[in-house]
Order: sequence, then C-alpha cells, then structure tokens
Amino acid sequence: MTATALPRYRDPAASVTERVRDLLGRMTLAEKVGQVNQRLYGWHAYRRTADGHRLTDRFTDEVAAFGGMGALYGLQRADAWSGVGFDDGLDAGDGARMAAAVQRHVMENTRLGIPVLLVEEMPHGHQALDGTVLPVNLSVGATWDPGLYAEAAAAAGAELRARGAHLALVSALDLVRDPRWGRAEECFGEDPYLAARLTEALVEGTRQAGVGVVLKHFAGQGATVGGRNSAATDLGARELHEIHLVAARAGVAAGASGVMAAYNEFDGLPCVANRHLLTEVLRERWGFEGLVMADGGAIDRLTRLTGDPVAAGALALRAGCDLSLWDDCFPRLAEAVAREPSLVAELDTAVARVLALKFRLGLFDQAPAAAGDGRSGRRKVAELAERVARASVTLLSHDGEVLPLSPALRRIAVIGPNADSVEQQTGDYTAPQRPGSGVTVLEGVRAFIPPGTEVVHAHGCELVGDDLTGVPEAVAAASGADVAVLVLGGSSARRPDTVFDANGAAVAGTGASPGMTCGEGVDLADIALPAGQRALLDAVAATGTPVVVVLVQGRPHALPDLHGTAAAVLTAWYPGPDGGRAVAEVLFGVHEPRGRLPVSVPRSAAQLPVFYNRKDHRYRGYVDQSHHPRHAFGHGLSYTTVEYGPPRLSHDSVSTRDPRLTCRVTVRNTGNRPAHETVQLYVRRVSGTTSWPRVRELRGFTHLLVAPGAQAEAVFSIDDDTLASLDRDLAWVVEPGVLAVETGPSSDRTQHAHLDITTPE
Amino acid sequence: MTATALPRYRDPAASVTERVRDLLGRMTLAEKVGQVNQRLYGWHAYRRTADGHRLTDRFTDEVAAFGGMGALYGLQRADAWSGVGFDDGLDAGDGARMAAAVQRHVMENTRLGIPVLLVEEMPHGHQALDGTVLPVNLSVGATWDPGLYAEAAAAAGAELRARGAHLALVSALDLVRDPRWGRAEECFGEDPYLAARLTEALVEGTRQAGVGVVLKHFAGQGATVGGRNSAATDLGARELHEIHLVAARAGVAAGASGVMAAYNEFDGLPCVANRHLLTEVLRERWGFEGLVMADGGAIDRLTRLTGDPVAAGALALRAGCDLSLWDDCFPRLAEAVAREPSLVAELDTAVARVLALKFRLGLFDQAPAAAGDGRSGRRKVAELAERVARASVTLLSHDGEVLPLSPALRRIAVIGPNADSVEQQTGDYTAPQRPGSGVTVLEGVRAFIPPGTEVVHAHGCELVGDDLTGVPEAVAAASGADVAVLVLGGSSARRPDTVFDANGAAVAGTGASPGMTCGEGVDLADIALPAGQRALLDAVAATGTPVVVVLVQGRPHALPDLHGTAAAVLTAWYPGPDGGRAVAEVLFGVHEPRGRLPVSVPRSAAQLPVFYNRKDHRYRGYVDQSHHPRHAFGHGLSYTTVEYGPPRLSHDSVSTRDPRLTCRVTVRNTGNRPAHETVQLYVRRVSGTTSWPRVRELRGFTHLLVAPGAQAEAVFSIDDDTLASLDRDLAWVVEPGVLAVETGPSSDRTQHAHLDITTPE
Repeated sequence: MTATALPRYRDPAASVTERVRDLLGRMTLAEKVGQVNQRLYGWHAYRRTADGHRLTDRFTDEVAAFGGMGALYGLQRADAWSGVGFDDGLDAGDGARMAAAVQRHVMENTRLGIPVLLVEEMPHGHQALDGTVLPVNLSVGATWDPGLYAEAAAAAGAELRARGAHLALVSALDLVRDPRWGRAEECFGEDPYLAARLTEALVEGTRQAGVGVVLKHFAGQGATVGGRNSAATDLGARELHEIHLVAARAGVAAGASGVMAAYNEFDGLPCVANRHLLTEVLRERWGFEGLVMADGGAIDRLTRLTGDPVAAGALALRAGCDLSLWDDCFPRLAEAVAREPSLVAELDTAVARVLALKFRLGLFDQAPAAAGDGRSGRRKVAELAERVARASVTLLSHDGEVLPLSPALRRIAVIGPNADSVEQQTGDYTAPQRPGSGVTVLEGVRAFIPPGTEVVHAHGCELVGDDLTGVPEAVAAASGADVAVLVLGGSSARRPDTVFDANGAAVAGTGASPGMTCGEGVDLADIALPAGQRALLDAVAATGTPVVVVLVQGRPHALPDLHGTAAAVLTAWYPGPDGGRAVAEVLFGVHEPRGRLPVSVPRSAAQLPVFYNRKDHRYRGYVDQSHHPRHAFGHGLSYTTVEYGPPRLSHDSVSTRDPRLTCRVTVRNTGNRPAHETVQLYVRRVSGTTSWPRVRELRGFTHLLVAPGAQAEAVFSIDDDTLASLDRDLAWVVEPGVLAVETGPSSDRTQHAHLDITTPE
Repeated sequence: MTATALPRYRDPAASVTERVRDLLGRMTLAEKVGQVNQRLYGWHAYRRTADGHRLTDRFTDEVAAFGGMGALYGLQRADAWSGVGFDDGLDAGDGARMAAAVQRHVMENTRLGIPVLLVEEMPHGHQALDGTVLPVNLSVGATWDPGLYAEAAAAAGAELRARGAHLALVSALDLVRDPRWGRAEECFGEDPYLAARLTEALVEGTRQAGVGVVLKHFAGQGATVGGRNSAATDLGARELHEIHLVAARAGVAAGASGVMAAYNEFDGLPCVANRHLLTEVLRERWGFEGLVMADGGAIDRLTRLTGDPVAAGALALRAGCDLSLWDDCFPRLAEAVAREPSLVAELDTAVARVLALKFRLGLFDQAPAAAGDGRSGRRKVAELAERVARASVTLLSHDGEVLPLSPALRRIAVIGPNADSVEQQTGDYTAPQRPGSGVTVLEGVRAFIPPGTEVVHAHGCELVGDDLTGVPEAVAAASGADVAVLVLGGSSARRPDTVFDANGAAVAGTGASPGMTCGEGVDLADIALPAGQRALLDAVAATGTPVVVVLVQGRPHALPDLHGTAAAVLTAWYPGPDGGRAVAEVLFGVHEPRGRLPVSVPRSAAQLPVFYNRKDHRYRGYVDQSHHPRHAFGHGLSYTTVEYGPPRLSHDSVSTRDPRLTCRVTVRNTGNRPAHETVQLYVRRVSGTTSWPRVRELRGFTHLLVAPGAQAEAVFSIDDDTLASLDRDLAWVVEPGVLAVETGPSSDRTQHAHLDITTPE
C-alpha cells in the first residue's frame, strides 16, 4: 500500500489562499450553500439524556443536507429567551464535550470534512451556564480603560475557547445616541472615539485568547428613529462615517474576524442589503477580509422587499453578506443560483471567506477533542469583572460630606428595588445565575460593617408602577438611620416565565417580565426615573436622613435636579452579579469612585438628543428647559478635589504634512484623598473645514493617579489621527485652519489652546 | 436731432435672454455685485418726517455704492422683531408710495437704471401694517383645500402687489417632523404630498396676482435635530428626496420665482453652501431657472467654516446662491473675484438670474409709479381668511352630544388664556393689529347668542407658569353654566417690549415675551399642554359642567387622554385675528367642523417622532407608552356619522408602462347633518421596491359633501405619480411589485385593495 497524498487543502504548510482555492474547487453547490448557512439554533443541536447529552436528528439532518455546516450559533447559550436553563443546558464541562462532539460529527460524517465554526454570544462574558459575567458594555465605557478591558476580553475569550467555541459575538459598534433604546447597555457609550478604543481592546484581547470576534452591529443601529429597536435610521453619509463607522473601522484595522450586518436600515436600505456599506466601504475602502454575518433573521426580513425568500437571499449575498443567521433564505441559495447562474461567483466569494477564517483559526488542523473542562480561567474572569465594576462606578454629584461612608456608622438603611437583586445587576444577554451566587448592594454593604453597626433593609417600591405601599417601611428604615443608601434604576432581567419573540421582546399577551425596563426589545419612551421611584426618593429624603442614591441601570435614566434631595448620586450601570461588592467598596472609600460618564445623563426625554458632540449651531435653547444634559459626557467626581491647568501645546502651529505636537496638562490634587483622574482631550474646529463643526470631539484620554497634595502631568501625543476631519469625499484628512485643543476633566469643563494648521509652502 | 437707439436690454420686444446678455455685457463688477446684494433692511430705507416719509441716506448710499440694488427686503414689514409699528411704519397708502419712491430713486439715479426687486414677507398675508392676515399655514394644511388656498394666496398677493412689491417670501417647504420646533405653525403639516399640493396652489395663486413667490426653506429645515431652530438635520439622501424635497419639486414645476436656501445643514453642509442641493438637484435635475435667495445672514454664518467673510461669499456663490440677505459677505464679492478671477463666471450666472427675473416680472417695462392706494382687494382677503379659518377648525374628539351648541343655552362660560386675545390668534410673522380689530373666541360666542343667554368669561390661568390664582373664578364661572368652552393652547405673540435677536429669539436677559410658547426661535422641549392649563382643565371638568376644549396653537401640543374630562376637543390652530368668529360658527353648528389633521397630535414629547409615514418596521412599541399618536394624521370628526366603503379599483393589475386606473370609494352619511368629508388615498408597498416601505404614504385626497342619509362616491385617478417610488438612483419610477391602495377618512382608519404592478412582456 502506498500512502494517499493529502489533498492540498489539508496541508498545513500551504497558504490559506491555496487551501481555500483547492477546497472550493472540490465543492458541490450544496456544500457551498452549507458553508454560508447558520440556520440552526445551537440549543437545538443537543438534547439531555439520562447519561449526559446527545446530538439531535435536527442537527445531523442539517449537516447531511448540506454536506457540512458553515457555523453553529449558540450551542451553549442559556437564558430566558432561548429557554435554556440549568435543567437542560450545558454547564462548562458539558459545553466543552458537546463542542467537541459537534465538531467530530461534522468532520467525520461529511465528504470533505470541513469543520464547523462554533459561534457564541460573549456580550459581557460567555452567555452560557457558569459563564463568568462581566459588567455590561456601558460599565466598560465608564472605565475609559481599554487596557483593563483588553484583559477582561482576553479572560472571557479564554473561557469561551476552553468550552470549544471559535467565534465570539460582541456588541461594540452601536452608540447610545438615543437612550430610549433598550440596548443602550450594550454600547460603550455615545462617543465614537471611546468606542473605537474599547473595540480595539476587545479585538486584541480576544485574539490573545485564540478566539475570533464578530463585532455587532454594522452599522448605525444606535441611531434608530425614536430609539426604536431595529427601526430606521436617518443618517447622512457624513454622519455615518464621522460617528457610526469609527469604531468599526478601528475594529477592522485591529483584526476583527467579522462584523454583523445590522437589522436597521439607513437611507432606505437594510444593512444586510446595503452593498455600498458591506462591500464598497467595508471591503474596498477598508480592505476587510473577514466575515460579514447577518443578524438573526435579518435576511428573512428582506422578503418584504423582494416578495420571495430566494430573491431575498440573493439580494443579501450580492450586497456582501457571507454567513446568515437563523434565516430561511441563505439555505435556499441553490435555488437562487439556478435562477441566476452568475450568482455563483458571489457565493464562491462568501464561501471562500468562511473557509479562510476556518483555516486562519486553525480549525482544519486541530483534532476535534474537548479543549478542557471549560472551567479554566474562571477566577481570572471574575477578578477582572470586579476590577471593571470598581472602575466603572461613577459619582455624579456629592455634597462633599456624606461620602465615603464610615463603616462605623451606627445604622445604615439600604433601600430600593435594586438594593438586593443579583439578577437586576447583570443586564440582558445573561445566562441564569446559580442560586445563592453573586453579591447585591445590600450584601456588599453588610460585608463592610463591623459587628456593632446595623444595616436595615427595605424594598420601598417596584422598579415601575405606582404601588407605594412599601414606602412607609422605607421611611421608617431611613428615619432611624445615619444614612440611607437608595438603590434605584432599571432592570434587564428576563424572567423564564415570559415568552419572547425573535427580537427579544415579550410576546404580546403573555406580558413583559415584571419590572423589566431595559434590554433588547425593551425600549422606553419616557426615560425619566419612574414616578414610583421618585416618590420613594422624595419620601426618604423628607426624613432628613442623608440620602445616597445608587443607580443600577442599563441606560442613563433622565434625572431631576437632586440638589437638596440626595447628598450624593452614583451610577453603577449594571455592575455584574458580584457588583454589589464594588459599589460598597466605593461607598466606603476602599476604592475611589473613578468612573466617567460614557454617555450624557439627560434631564428629560423631551430634550433628546443630548449627546455632547452635537453640531455646534450656537443654539440658544428651548424656552422651557435647558438643552444641556443633567450631567455631561466625561463627567465623574472623586472624593478629593483637583485643579486642572490649561493645555500647553509644544507648537502653536503645525503643517498639514507633519502635524505632530504634544499637549501637556497639569493636574493638582488639592484634597486629601488620592485622585484617579481621566484627563480628556477634545478638539473643536474654529475654522477651515468643509463640514459644520461639532461642539467638540473626544480625541484622547489618559489616566493619572495623583496623591493628595501632589501634582502630575498628562502628556498627549497629537498627530494626524487626532486632528483629522472628514473632507468632502468622506476621507479623513488634516485640513488647514484653526482648531481649539481642549482638555479637562469632562466635556463641559475644558480649557483650550488654539492651534493653527497651515498648508506647507 | 436723431433719436438715440434704445439699448437692447430696454427693448420689450427682445427676448429675456437677449436682454439679460446685453445688460450683463454693460455692467461693471461693482454693478454686478450690487445685483446680488440684499443687505439693507427695508425699514432702514425710509424715515417718518413731519409730512410723510423720506428715503434715508443709508438707502441712497447703498444704491450709490453698487450702482443699483439687487433687492430690498421688507420695506413694509412691521412687527415687534423689526421694531416697526403704527407710529413709524408704512400703512397701505404710504407703502405703495414708498415702493414707488424707492423704485424711482434706483432707476433714475443709477447708470443703467436697473430696477430693484421689492421683496416682502407674505407668511399668511402681507406682513405689513394693515396687511390682511390669513390663518397660519398649519391652518391652511388643516383645510386640505388647495383650491381655497390658491384663492387666498391670489388675494394676499394682489394686496402685496397693490403696495408695489414684486416678490413674496412664503414658508411652504418645511414639514413638521418634530413639533418641538417653534416654526411648526409655518408648515402645511408633516406630509410631503399635502405640502406639495398646497405649494402648487400658492405658486399658482400668487402668479395670478402678478407676484413672484420665493418658497421657504430649501431644504429639510423641518427635520432639525431636537426640533432646534436652524440646527443640523440628520438626513440621508433618500429621506431628503422622498420627504423633504417633494414640495419644492412641485413648487418649482409650478413656476416658483425662487427658493430660499435654509439655515440648517444636512450631512455637514449648510444649505447655502451645498452645491449638490442648489445646483445639481435644483438646477441640473429639476431645470429650475429662478432665484436662489439665501436666508437672512445665513452666508455670514459660513465665516465659521472659511474664517473669512470674503471666502464665505465665494463659497455660497459657487454653491448656487444668487441673492443674499442681510449679510456682509455678498457685498464683498468684488474682493472674492479679485482673489479668484474665475469666480466672475459664477457671479455672472447669479446676476443673470436676478436680471432675468426682473425682466420676466416686467420691472424694466413699468413706470415706477404708485400702483394704487394699496388697499384694493382687502375685503376679498378678509373673506378668504374667514373661509380658511372655518375650513380648518378640526374636531378631535366628541361625546356625540355636546356639540353643536344650542344658542339657546341659558349660560355659556368661556374660559382660558386664549379665550379673548386677538394677538394670540394670529401667529408669528404678523404685523401689529389695529386696537379694537379682530374677533376673539369670546367675542365670536357672544355674537351668536340671543339676548336671553348669558356668556360668562374667566381668564383662568396664563398660558405658561403655575399661577393658579385665576382658577377659582373659572370654576365659579363653569359651575353655573350649561357648558364651558375652555380655550387653551399656545401663543406666538411677540410683545414690542421684548428685544429679539436676528433669529427672532428673545435676547437673553430681557426675557421672552410673556406667554410666548411658539414662533421662530421659540422651541419647546416638552410640548405637553402646560401644567397650569391642565390644572385649569381638570378643575373646570370637576364641576361636572360639560367642557368643550378649543385649542388655539401653533404646534400640536401633546394631549393627555381627555376621555371623561372633555366632552369635545377642537383645534383651531392660529385662525387669524377674526378667527374667533369661525370657531364660534363651528361650535354652534352654523358650519360643520371639517378640518383634518395635517400633523399627528402626540401623546408626549417622549414618543417623538410620531409622523404617520414612518418606515414600517413592524415595531412592537415602547414598553411604557404607545408609539402611536393621540390623534392620527388625517383625523377629524364631524357632527354626523359616516361610513366608508372599501376602495374599488378598476383594475387589479397594471403594467409599469401604463399604470393607470381609477379607485372609487363610497361614503354614506348615516347621521342627520351634512358630511364634509376629506376622502384620503394612501399607498403602501407590500413588496417589490428597492427601499424599505413606509407604513403608508398619502397620494390623493378629495372632498365630498354628502347630505344626511345620502351617499356619494369619491373617484381617484391613479397614475404613475400616485404609484411612484424612488429607485436606487433616487429617480421617481413605478416599480413592479404589489402595492396596497388604501382609502379612508384618516391615516389610521383605512381599508385597502391590492394592486399588482407588472413589468410589460
């Protein structure tokens, strides 16, 4: 017997291009269609049996029908929406074993043995049973700390990889341009620069873990009309490029494996059908070589345009979608090719991209074995979750006295609908948590006090509704206390008894999960802190006991003027299941509050939008209320006092050809506690641009730790990226003119220096 | 002596093209610059003297400096903003004489004798002392009656012409996409089709009067972010063409003399600098040959981009502005030409357009004499104002019993801050009214009752603020009455003691005009009916006396659910100084209520935007409140009951080549009063379009008068205009596919029939 030569595509020594070309040449049309197909929900691929889990016929039939499978989504996903819980889901060890079993089945039972991509949600940690939960992205945004987030993403990615998955789906590209949107919590904030830096951190972190990342959502989904989920956006091309594509461009440059084409349309075309976006911008302008994955069922929606699922699939394929999700259109692409034989070229391109990613991730060259028990790195993630939570707690206002709390206070009242719920700290896209796990704010406070101190607790009211029957108990608790910690806000906790549709909205007739005010499909019109919570706050404040408001929330609820009502207001966003500890640590001053707002806090829904980087039309304002937010982007206080010097530029003038300089800012800590400052650098166009200027635009930030009484200097290197603006052709260039370089502790407290940018002779 | 030959440009027998060419060839650079200059406020051109009025040096100097004057804006304008009142302004006769004096001066004291264009505001009648005031455009929109409006515009135009003016500036192109905007009152409503029909009527009416019309504002100003005046818009190209350019395109096709380039930017470029808009779309695509006039001071604002007024003028000129307004840039275009000699070609083009309009309007061929006493046609306008007011009163809700009021009621209470103010009925851009003129709602009601009936009046509260000291008097008045007519809403009345800036906003520090809630520069964040008014309403309703709410307002205030509070709710918008009579006529059933909403009435500012023709994403809705408006676009009740049959199409299927058919709708009057119905036809894309479909789009309407017990048939001719949608290249085409033709009494009560549109073999 002579050894059969390995087919070229199986040779690890060959280039990816060669391997793809070889393999593509061997494939039937059905096999090609199979590679762009991701129809099956992962949790339909297995079933629990008496002695473990087995693969379903549904799964093996799907593999057989297409001679393979492009990707399998959410094998390990667990949550109320998928209906998967501890009873029937995969824990860490089972997850790793099932991933290996799936891969083995696909590779061993198909003609060409092409491995399947195992795709998992990693919104804030792996969304699987026992997956470690990070604070939501809005918390990550509040840290302004890409380095920390890269570590967290690497740890979460490692956990996901240990369970056998290859691709992590992560929201990163959406911006909170309208906080009515229930997915605000999934955003890094309202600002493109901050989102871009965190997106890069995400890509770099997951790459370290050997996991590819698919960035959600491409593009503009944070700008849908009225904050309505997956609705239309009104976006001109310039606004799109200047704001909504910035993080995507950075993520692509950093090496993202894929982007997810979003549900929303802009300018009349849903993203999955937008060839300009998916091909001209993404591929031709940016040179992206990874995957475009359609959002779940998004291609099916195109049937409304085409009247026909086969034509809908063809439309998405031609636009530039490479891999579908849960749809009935891409699985029928063979019919589309039969109608239009020329479509096979587009199909080949898509298949080649899927295969190339599989080669690059090493899937062809690994044995399909369980990668471990799926638990490695768990402690590491938990530790990073805690660091993110701590760094994200943001002090919005303070009378300068009430905080930090002394653990020696005689009695502390902890009150409110978010005071004692682990679930309500975790955000949407979270797997069920083991009973008894997690640390609530109440538990966090209890853990800090010495035996002689009493903590009294009252629920007060529900998150929504006007049942105030719990208020008297709360008032009684506050009356006898030295301080009342009032934990208010919102919740994205989905209860398992609620039935959800494919958008994650509670199905009409079954009722939304009680108290759910945020999350996918849970948009609010009026984002004011609900009336019941305000009534509770007023009643507790009326006792005269100093009140510290802690907001646990997935969006910035609009806040009334709380001077005179609350001695301090903090927001912790959704700090994660153990987040109550971080909140308590900040309350007691074990750690300084050092989060900064990644999003403006509105005064009311009536004044929306309030993002800081609006176009600067020197608007005089509404006659009935301010058009400025309650708290500005970048804002966040500490327990000490600081003084910022003006920006000092190394040059007053630079040329467009070599626009490099440095900017220095001195920060003095004039108080008696450490200052953790996030020094922010903005640019503002004074003249000389083709586009109307914005009020200001974030272009740099850095952290300083300044000891009491000391001073430190932040140094920014300014270059063409810092100074660039979009020219008429939507290219980023340095335009001549005058620019103000602004620095300070937040977007509403800056000092500036002018910089002339000249055209070289 | 031999007669000197007339220069060619003075020969009425020569073509306009020839005359322009000849004249242009004779002009110096300064004279050319003078023709695109409209810097001087008209009211600075004259001064009152002991025996009448004389021209100012400021005026004669300006003419001398440029050897002529392109246009003079607002010679006869009077209002709080211009500071012109009865003491110093021009009445009808003086206006006509001064117009002639201005023209005589310009033609007799310049080398070439080029006449000046006299430009006046005609927002709703000529904005001059004794100018007859029409209801505002939002009232016109509520009539859904282009024929009536054409008559009104012709009459108002004739009045303006009689005072010697040539060009009328009229808001027509803006749409109420965000009712927070204080200029909502100047819009025909939220819908492009309705606005387009009324814009055509405006152009046709003014043309009959021999007056040219400049349509304001081009383009997209109704879509500024947050409803903030003259701010940015976020508009994709498709949204722009599909919604915001429709009325402009219709007005241009109908023969408008000019369009005014708006303050707002879209996609980063202010309209006055947007060559794509002003040249590629307007000139090259639409073939427009009239003027582009910049909005007041808009070119000056470009200095923020260019850093320099000379460059700002050049930018606007290159973009396609032909005539400036109040700016310091266009008067310096000679400097711009000195910098860039090639700019003279653009300048020549602009001058040629100004001259061509002057030739077309016959200015060169008229003696500059007073055209009359300026009063002709006054009664005609007043009669038309009354007809418009009557036709615009809209019944929003009704218990079916309280209306029409019997004049024989024992006692009627008329209550509220808008019950007895002529000023508050007139809207912004209104000249002072002679003391004692006008008819308020209170006076209108008084005029209807027989001697035995008593009318009691109470002010109740102010429009804004929380002073409720007047409420007890109102409650007392209502308690003893058979019905309480509660007149609430808003006001755009500018008090002369308030100082306004160039945007019409009250200057900070001097305080806004008390009670002013609407008008240019008067934007509201929270558009809810103010709290004081709601408290008054609740208090009056609590008396048990049936309450009829009449809203006098310049925007649709958001309304709470008034079932159980108000027996009937009507909106009269700003019905004009005599509008109280029309309101009373409708209340007493002398005329049927027959207005239909040209704009959605919101439930709250939190749910904005609420326009009916949103993109149809099958949105499930906010979790806390409906995303549907309180009252839908097209809604309006009558005192009778009607039944609409389904649409009956003459064909189920048409081809794209000849897509003509008819649609018939039977309307039965099942009540016992006449039915004035506005039958509405909408289209809705079911499939087969390149663009995501809207919920529905108005494409036809017609009036039916149906006697009690009778039935009538509305017949719509459907053609390619009805069926067109924008293709990928933003051209209006009939696309194959399935379309629902919907008919009914409002946008939320339609029945439909499907129509197949096929591609011909």
